[in-house]
Amino acid sequence: MKYCSNCGQPVSLQPVEGDERERFVCNACNTIHYENPKVVAGCLPIWEDKVLLCRRAIEPRSGLWNVPAGYLENGETIEEGAIREVWEEACAKVSVVGLQTIYNITRINQVYLLYVAELIEPTFSCGIESLEVKLFSEADIPWDEMAFTSSTFCLKHYFEDRKKGLLQLHTASYPTVF
Amino acid sequence: MKYCSNCGQPVSLQPVEGDERERFVCNACNTIHYENPKVVAGCLPIWEDKVLLCRRAIEPRSGLWNVPAGYLENGETIEEGAIREVWEEACAKVSVVGLQTIYNITRINQVYLLYVAELIEPTFSCGIESLEVKLFSEADIPWDEMAFTSSTFCLKHYFEDRKKGLLQLHTASYPTVF
Repeated sequence: MKYCSNCGQPVSLQPVEGDERERFVCNACNTIHYENPKVVAGCLPIWEDKVLLCRRAIEPRSGLWNVPAGYLENGETIEEGAIREVWEEACAKVSVVGLQTIYNITRINQVYLLYVAELIEPTFSCGIESLEVKLFSEADIPWDEMAFTSSTFCLKHYFEDRKKGLLQLHTASYPTVF
Repeated sequence: MKYCSNCGQPVSLQPVEGDERERFVCNACNTIHYENPKVVAGCLPIWEDKVLLCRRAIEPRSGLWNVPAGYLENGETIEEGAIREVWEEACAKVSVVGLQTIYNITRINQVYLLYVAELIEPTFSCGIESLEVKLFSEADIPWDEMAFTSSTFCLKHYFEDRKKGLLQLHTASYPTVF
């Protein structure tokens, strides 16, 4: 951040009264500009014993597979964002079952919140951000071609828990060892 | 947003290719400025059969009671943010037990994530944002003097679940009827 979004004049990092952190403050109008992590919302869509993954058509990690997810937008709940992302990336409609993954990537100020969700019908196709959308059984998951460790974390725990008849929340931070 | 934080020139709402929403885009350098919801992280601290609440010293809702919580900061996990907020508002150290509340306030683009946490010792005092910090048994909760509905939602479910020996995640969106 170099300039104030309120008045267009330069900002600088400054101490702020009652705040432990320095913030970008406008040198002209004194507006304090806070920067905070972003939520990435998504779903692991399930149909029978299979899960739906998308092969990314965009950078980063274009060509690799992912659980459909993306930035939560203003005006939507986390579940609404997660459902929208499945629609945008996989043209599929889902019903949320429960929150399954919280995955923090502090280095880039992202928090992934991934839900397990049921496909309402086994109908899907590529959204503009996907090269391919496909149902995978556990044995066929392309573990070596996953785009992000958040998806690997989500999938590993989903299959482990399913064998025990469980659906539960798992939390981790990048980097995670599997 | 009126000016570009990258170059200081005016921005305007514009359609962006491959994006369903208009974004603020710089008229000079074409930087796209995304605005996304903020995470409010916090804990309901527990000691024996009591819960720790803070009476707010700051607006909004100064003078009313709240579960210690505040904006997640860059560089921290949600749990780290939740623990830090208890330290800042109540000078108390906690150990997180589990995520208990997701509370969406879409009108102001906030997502509350509240954990149940155990006080490590029954030692607490007012941080600079608190007028009073106090342990309450269920019978003494000042229900009519709560600052935010997210705290009321969290507390109602905590006590209901405790009677059943449960700790589970509850999700709601403002406005919620209790």
